[in-house]
Amino acid sequence: MCQDSLKTYLDDLASTKPAPGGGSAAALAGAVGAALMSKVANFTIGKEKYKAVEEEISGLLDDSELLREDFGRLSSEDIHAYQGLAAAFRMPKETPAEKKERQQKVQQALKEATSVPFEICQDAHKAIKLCLPLVKKGNANLITDSGIAAIMFKCAFESALLNVEINLKSIKDSEFVLKIRKELKPMQKEIDAINQKVNSEVKKHLGGLR
Amino acid sequence: MCQDSLKTYLDDLASTKPAPGGGSAAALAGAVGAALMSKVANFTIGKEKYKAVEEEISGLLDDSELLREDFGRLSSEDIHAYQGLAAAFRMPKETPAEKKERQQKVQQALKEATSVPFEICQDAHKAIKLCLPLVKKGNANLITDSGIAAIMFKCAFESALLNVEINLKSIKDSEFVLKIRKELKPMQKEIDAINQKVNSEVKKHLGGLR
Repeated sequence: MCQDSLKTYLDDLASTKPAPGGGSAAALAGAVGAALMSKVANFTIGKEKYKAVEEEISGLLDDSELLREDFGRLSSEDIHAYQGLAAAFRMPKETPAEKKERQQKVQQALKEATSVPFEICQDAHKAIKLCLPLVKKGNANLITDSGIAAIMFKCAFESALLNVEINLKSIKDSEFVLKIRKELKPMQKEIDAINQKVNSEVKKHLGGLR
Repeated sequence: MCQDSLKTYLDDLASTKPAPGGGSAAALAGAVGAALMSKVANFTIGKEKYKAVEEEISGLLDDSELLREDFGRLSSEDIHAYQGLAAAFRMPKETPAEKKERQQKVQQALKEATSVPFEICQDAHKAIKLCLPLVKKGNANLITDSGIAAIMFKCAFESALLNVEINLKSIKDSEFVLKIRKELKPMQKEIDAINQKVNSEVKKHLGGLR
């Protein structure tokens, strides 16, 4: 996703090109959240007022930059996984042998296509956990940016989750399907809980209004 | 925001440049949502199966493209509004006359800085309302993209709302503050309700799982 202009990316997203689509957009929301975390950290490090937390915030910055890179990778990979799936669907299905081979390739491609949004969910889960120390200890002038980062990660998770589910719907390996769902469920709960906590911290700072 | 590469935009977001920040990121989430709506509409129009809804979906496409443009404008304007506020804060405050003038300019700049995220909230509210007919009548193969669009608009609204509130906190014109809050509250409720309805439609399609 990195070389295109934002305008081109959004034009492609809006177009009848098969990709980028929602999965890539989910990863972009994650990358935006990670960049905002880094901004808050960068505005905290080196300030006398925040000297006591500087080491911890530097660690958070390393993490958010790694996550930002990973969300970027996933945004690109989602495009390729989609192409693999489209290619499998285009395979011939005239003879029983062809049907069988196509079926196998489609199932394999569906699993691969699932792994990208699943990784986006995992990264969003990792990332939102970092928002809680950041909103409490990071530069208070940028507290809404920490809050917005958490909202972006929740958005990335929920968006990617829809794409996980639409793939799972067609996967016949029920063990695989159960395993993925079993991992995602507690993540979703934790994401909601952390987002609420981060939001409470921001509201507290804003004077408990609304 | 339109001419930069995505990589540059995210680098700036992560940096100690004062802008872009969370407000611009909120508008970007809105633009991504609008682009996804357009994708679903573009994959619906011209298909025999969707002939009966073609006119309605064409109208939705016009709306989503206008919203996409407006979110783009707001993403850029947020950067300028922030610069205006920073300039007002830098004004001299030695003499009582200077203090008074600075105070007035800061209050004016705060109102202007509020109007951008407030407009993002308004656009997100307009946009999510279009997701309900789209998820019901648009191309069912792209149903998760309609769902992700709604999630993006909720994310844009909630993100921009934090930036509205941090500005309102310092605005002394209590009539202005009340008026803004009174408009936002019902919007927020409606956004949550519509997002849930859209999500239910998507889940119904995915087989009621999860």
